[in-house]
Amino acid sequence: MMQQLLDHIGRYCAIPADKNYLIEPFFERKTFKKKEFLLIEGQRCSEKFFILKGCVHLSYLKQNGTEQIIDFALENWWTSDFTAFQQRTTAQFSIRAIEPVEALCISADNQHALLKQLPELNAYFHKVFQRSYAASQMRLRYLYELPKEELYRHFLQQFPDFTQRVPQYLLASFLGFTPEYLSELRKKFIS
Amino acid sequence: MMQQLLDHIGRYCAIPADKNYLIEPFFERKTFKKKEFLLIEGQRCSEKFFILKGCVHLSYLKQNGTEQIIDFALENWWTSDFTAFQQRTTAQFSIRAIEPVEALCISADNQHALLKQLPELNAYFHKVFQRSYAASQMRLRYLYELPKEELYRHFLQQFPDFTQRVPQYLLASFLGFTPEYLSELRKKFIS
Repeated sequence: MMQQLLDHIGRYCAIPADKNYLIEPFFERKTFKKKEFLLIEGQRCSEKFFILKGCVHLSYLKQNGTEQIIDFALENWWTSDFTAFQQRTTAQFSIRAIEPVEALCISADNQHALLKQLPELNAYFHKVFQRSYAASQMRLRYLYELPKEELYRHFLQQFPDFTQRVPQYLLASFLGFTPEYLSELRKKFIS
Repeated sequence: MMQQLLDHIGRYCAIPADKNYLIEPFFERKTFKKKEFLLIEGQRCSEKFFILKGCVHLSYLKQNGTEQIIDFALENWWTSDFTAFQQRTTAQFSIRAIEPVEALCISADNQHALLKQLPELNAYFHKVFQRSYAASQMRLRYLYELPKEELYRHFLQQFPDFTQRVPQYLLASFLGFTPEYLSELRKKFIS
């Protein structure tokens, strides 16, 4: 369980093996049922989550009461409302399990203490966030550039497994489509 | 000049003063005229830029040959095509000076060498990228949520000085408006 996070860290930076034991005490393992919330919009956000198993979505409530999905996270992804996490304020997003989820959670205080003990981990987080930010630049490009049909085609190509796991109405929300339009596109692509 | 970067680093992490001298050799100071390119879409991207003075925009060329602005950067902001920077591939964005620009540039190789000598800097970049990524989450929320008029109002409130510095046709592109629509909104807001 912890090994999964250690393996992920190992892909980005070298932590001496005899220091690995320092990491575990700062994390808490939590499980969430399908549709359970990891974080609720409007409540204080003091944790970030490393997904061990399952899939979650990040969303907010629109004025009309519907959920707008703005992101997903799968195994080995970090997720949180990072503005709220870093400022220790109330969340402007909810995070909710799409499948049963196991996650390692770390509070902002614990992260601060961990990085003090093991500053080498900053190299890991530097690379993780650089990747995430780079992906968000590309995502903006796709959002501005691609016609809706192309956006869906691009998503299918980039994340084929993912498209199988995520219910279609959530994917439609993420892509900014109505569920009906997504259903039409799917029929078109299958035929 | 270098002091400006050191001050910025000092806001996020503590580098021992006797190690500051290690940083400068890895950077190159460059100046760019108004409208000059810092980075050109399609060319290899091997640098990232810390803006000392001036203002730049990040954009790509749409199929119809017009520039789509997806971001700006001002004094004390880092900018690059971060996917291309980390993978050392060709840029999918251009970066161009809106005003005369002074920047400190660091290549991917130099950054690698600098972080080897001064791993403490990872804490700085971790925080810088976490902030940037957090801002991009909020930006997605505004893009999905706000009607166009509100988006402009929000932008004016968040970045009042900025709105004065950036030509209106670039701001219109960034907000996804036509220049004519932005001009109408401005008249409405002034009256």
